[in-house]
Amino acid sequence: MPDKPKTPLLDEIHQPSDLKRLNDPQLRQIADELRSETISAVSETGGHLGAGLGVIELTVALHAVFDTPKDKLIWDVSHQSYPHKILTGRRDRIRTIRQQGGLSGFTKRSESPYDPFGAAHSSTSISAALGFAVARDLGGSAEGGLGDAIAVIGDGSMSAGMAFEAMNNAGHLKKRLFVILNDNDMSIAPPVGALSNYLNRLYSGEPFQDFKAAAKGAVSLLPEPFREGAKRAKEMLKGMTIGGTLFEELGFTYIGPIDGHDMTQLLPVLRTVKARATGPVLIHVQTKKGKGYAPAERARDRGHATAKFDVLTGEQKKAPSNAPSYTNVFGKALLDLAARDDKICAVTAAMPDGTGLNLFAERYPSRCFDVGIAEQHGVTFSAALAAGGLKPFCAMYSTFLQRGYDQVVHDVAIQRLPVRFAIDRAGLVGADGATHAGSFDTAFLANLPGMVVMAAADEAELVHMVATAAAHDDGPIAFRYPRGEGVGVDLPERGTPLQIGKGRMIQKGSRVAILSFGTRLQEVMKACENLTAKGIRPTVADARFAKPLDEDLILTLAHDHEALITIEEGAIGGFGSHVAQLLAENGVFDSGLRFRSMVLPDIFIDQASPDVMYDVAGLSASDIEAKVLDALGIATIGEKRA
Amino acid sequence: MPDKPKTPLLDEIHQPSDLKRLNDPQLRQIADELRSETISAVSETGGHLGAGLGVIELTVALHAVFDTPKDKLIWDVSHQSYPHKILTGRRDRIRTIRQQGGLSGFTKRSESPYDPFGAAHSSTSISAALGFAVARDLGGSAEGGLGDAIAVIGDGSMSAGMAFEAMNNAGHLKKRLFVILNDNDMSIAPPVGALSNYLNRLYSGEPFQDFKAAAKGAVSLLPEPFREGAKRAKEMLKGMTIGGTLFEELGFTYIGPIDGHDMTQLLPVLRTVKARATGPVLIHVQTKKGKGYAPAERARDRGHATAKFDVLTGEQKKAPSNAPSYTNVFGKALLDLAARDDKICAVTAAMPDGTGLNLFAERYPSRCFDVGIAEQHGVTFSAALAAGGLKPFCAMYSTFLQRGYDQVVHDVAIQRLPVRFAIDRAGLVGADGATHAGSFDTAFLANLPGMVVMAAADEAELVHMVATAAAHDDGPIAFRYPRGEGVGVDLPERGTPLQIGKGRMIQKGSRVAILSFGTRLQEVMKACENLTAKGIRPTVADARFAKPLDEDLILTLAHDHEALITIEEGAIGGFGSHVAQLLAENGVFDSGLRFRSMVLPDIFIDQASPDVMYDVAGLSASDIEAKVLDALGIATIGEKRA
Repeated sequence: MPDKPKTPLLDEIHQPSDLKRLNDPQLRQIADELRSETISAVSETGGHLGAGLGVIELTVALHAVFDTPKDKLIWDVSHQSYPHKILTGRRDRIRTIRQQGGLSGFTKRSESPYDPFGAAHSSTSISAALGFAVARDLGGSAEGGLGDAIAVIGDGSMSAGMAFEAMNNAGHLKKRLFVILNDNDMSIAPPVGALSNYLNRLYSGEPFQDFKAAAKGAVSLLPEPFREGAKRAKEMLKGMTIGGTLFEELGFTYIGPIDGHDMTQLLPVLRTVKARATGPVLIHVQTKKGKGYAPAERARDRGHATAKFDVLTGEQKKAPSNAPSYTNVFGKALLDLAARDDKICAVTAAMPDGTGLNLFAERYPSRCFDVGIAEQHGVTFSAALAAGGLKPFCAMYSTFLQRGYDQVVHDVAIQRLPVRFAIDRAGLVGADGATHAGSFDTAFLANLPGMVVMAAADEAELVHMVATAAAHDDGPIAFRYPRGEGVGVDLPERGTPLQIGKGRMIQKGSRVAILSFGTRLQEVMKACENLTAKGIRPTVADARFAKPLDEDLILTLAHDHEALITIEEGAIGGFGSHVAQLLAENGVFDSGLRFRSMVLPDIFIDQASPDVMYDVAGLSASDIEAKVLDALGIATIGEKRA
Repeated sequence: MPDKPKTPLLDEIHQPSDLKRLNDPQLRQIADELRSETISAVSETGGHLGAGLGVIELTVALHAVFDTPKDKLIWDVSHQSYPHKILTGRRDRIRTIRQQGGLSGFTKRSESPYDPFGAAHSSTSISAALGFAVARDLGGSAEGGLGDAIAVIGDGSMSAGMAFEAMNNAGHLKKRLFVILNDNDMSIAPPVGALSNYLNRLYSGEPFQDFKAAAKGAVSLLPEPFREGAKRAKEMLKGMTIGGTLFEELGFTYIGPIDGHDMTQLLPVLRTVKARATGPVLIHVQTKKGKGYAPAERARDRGHATAKFDVLTGEQKKAPSNAPSYTNVFGKALLDLAARDDKICAVTAAMPDGTGLNLFAERYPSRCFDVGIAEQHGVTFSAALAAGGLKPFCAMYSTFLQRGYDQVVHDVAIQRLPVRFAIDRAGLVGADGATHAGSFDTAFLANLPGMVVMAAADEAELVHMVATAAAHDDGPIAFRYPRGEGVGVDLPERGTPLQIGKGRMIQKGSRVAILSFGTRLQEVMKACENLTAKGIRPTVADARFAKPLDEDLILTLAHDHEALITIEEGAIGGFGSHVAQLLAENGVFDSGLRFRSMVLPDIFIDQASPDVMYDVAGLSASDIEAKVLDALGIATIGEKRA
């Protein structure tokens, strides 16, 4: 491992206000040191690299010009916030990022007053900034005070409907507000959509040369009051504009595009708008994701997310994987089906790689649709594809499907259209923490009339569920599966459609039955080993379906055992609740059943490894074992994790 | 009642293809007759009037030019679809609209092949049209075939993020696709936002005179091929444009604005685009909501929704109301609190009247924010208002809050920000049917850590819950209440904050306890009367809170009774599921409890009166009575509704 970089000037910065003492060349040096420190830190921890490297200069300039934390600086998504964290008193913990007990990989209100509004999902920053601006004007209060509000948002995030809604509202309210459009022509994947083309056109000229002269002039404008200053500043702002009509038509003053790696552009522009702006201003900044670190600049994803790596070579130190990821298994299974059925098509919301649809997009580009960060549209678009006789697979992370929930209800479920929802990242996800947990989908899908909801217990099951979804044409169907690697079971060459609403028996035992929905089945089997050693051999079944339930299986399990325990990787309201309702309606509780439902607990769980998170959640093998003993009335005090 | 209007030409139209035989003056006459018929029909049934009257000419022109149902005509929201229904074989049932067993007030796939994609929530039409266009090009199939795709969307709906997402994707895919922007400068309330201002600017000139000449010329272009035809058509389209840059920048060809009540403009433009378009086209049509019926044109809401009325006078025949509506009670209670606390503010998504915030907006305009049809932004904006030290009440219908679900999770709940959600139209809503049912909010909110979820049993309880929400500063809180009038109880002069997580005992009885969450309490009390006559006097409690649960109350009820029955106006996964989980975890089922949970059934329920809908749902007094007898093991066969 190379020595940590030398950062003499950065070492003197303990909080952003320390930057105020520095002159512009020193700020330039701070940026260089901050870049080295960011690369060094992420090389030790892994994490999001490219986005932070793209905003090094912007981070320094914003903190040098504005007065955080009084001024509310809001990073959209906040993958790019590592340099911000280093500058705002968290440098000593930056090498704990995304690790258990360490800094969050995202901005987080509870972590620092310099994070006034946390993020992780995209496109929330303008709404948040507008709220702070309004609160300021209505006499609100916040830690550090309430000054200016600044949203930094990427061009990918700008294409989401929510950002448009916020722009539309901000342009109407006319409050002083700053939106920095960080245009790097990348989200996680290259961005798609008409807006992206539009932005490309905006800097297809050669504005930077002209701009530099104008920007230099701007510096001299600053000491107020001075003759014609206001007029010249206004002209300068106008002069910088080579386009931006779209934003102007939404009520924003548009400035740009400017070079986001050139402090001689960033600093004067920010100083000018801070001194002059009266309404909403959009500053269009062109940056390069991964800037200043060759391996990231070269990478297809511009170093978006990385494992630990060697700083000199950029080589990542990934642990060898034993089994394919669920994501990959899904992608390949779908590809196989698509080869035999030309009606199968796929929809992703800006996550072709994350959802495993990259293979599909390569092989069948005309049947694969990356709609951009636009889950609402993506779901309804899928519904219409189904209405038009195709077989759409709408592949989204559980947590992002929340963005399209109304569309699932209104356009898919009420119309009973056969959209196939491939729900990745179900359950707890590890380093991304609470904001990315897929905790709620079973609950919010299984109570929709006509919806079929499955969860895969392992990667072979997932292959069958992809086939089941393809074959199911009578209404919508969803199947969920976790982040990460499978358990290493043999994969079938080809999936076989499952019978809708039928579970499977895993092992027959006595006294207690454990009914698992999803990949907790592995932990259930571990618990069973320990229990068997104690003389209790549970019956185990894999429910496969939260809806429709396998009523025969469940009622038989209840009838044949003293205790029935359900377990799932989801919050209350999902699988266990449906089972409880079935048992109640059938009078099973009337004469007594030791029923327990193991669900995610009523807390948001911070990042750690998924195993540790499930331990915190009380859904590990030892918890299952304890629950069985407790349900059977066998004392366990002091036993669990002794 | 006046005689039905004479409609000799319309009487000959049994399906849209019949319009093809008519010349342009006859189509003009059809429009006039269709307007009379629409007014006459709605005068008998009540319903949505203004929106339909605004698109009479557009409806005739679209059906005359395009080939429905092969061409997919998709009405956004579809309040405006009554004239469309009359032209598409449903005239004989139009006077049953919004009534039990009658036509839906919205487009509905199961009702007609001319409704290729149902709607009711806004801004879905462009996504749907794009899906059909793609399905057509990929060899899909649909009833009637797959031809052109046409979305008709209002200017209010266009401001929602979802519409922007769809435009962005359509501009990228470049498929032939038609978006008719029906710009009447109204949604339900006057629209707000920068986009609205932009549209106003587009027709601030006097384009119509110039246009007419151009449009007349267009007719002669139609028989193809002819010399320079393509060139002239292109010039004509360009020539019509006096603005529209925003849409052009999103990849659409922009045409307009044109007068949507002038068939001599509509017909040639539609014929031209049908003949010529190769990519996405936006046709900007200016219309007047309520056009051609003076009482509607005069009304503040342009006759948006009306009771039965007298055609000659426009006077509505509303039944006198006995009690104030929940909406009104909420609005007044909030107003009272706001007078004493200047930190209280309010957010609505384009529904100031529907949510009762109109009073607040009048009295405290600087503290009331109509963000437009933008629930995603509205929720996050509220979260930031809370982070800025204000006390935001985010007032939305249950069904529309689904649009902001991810924001509730990600921006409000995870950050534990004290946003107050006032959830109107909870439960079944009557004439608006399944698309507007507020069925899922308890389930999707109560499983969020840190969320408090209340339901009001009557309008006095609602007043207390508004006060409770105002006083609750430790995280988010939601309270739900139904559409329609209260039950007529005395209202407290001022609300008293309730103790969080505490229910209230209504009556003490024996054998069976009924635990109600929400306004089913009235039906519970009716059931108790009948049961008491049969010698069973149930204990009744009002839970008030689905989260946190009143654990003491619930466990005591379970302990003291043979049977415990929960009831709520929501789907499975909500209150009853939380109670079941509590009982299971406390081992209450181990030794037997006759537990039942009455929830909305697993079907989407068509429009009828709310009482009839609850009867269909099995949540009426007679159902409660039967459930009690069943739980106690008393045979009821043949008794229920005998």
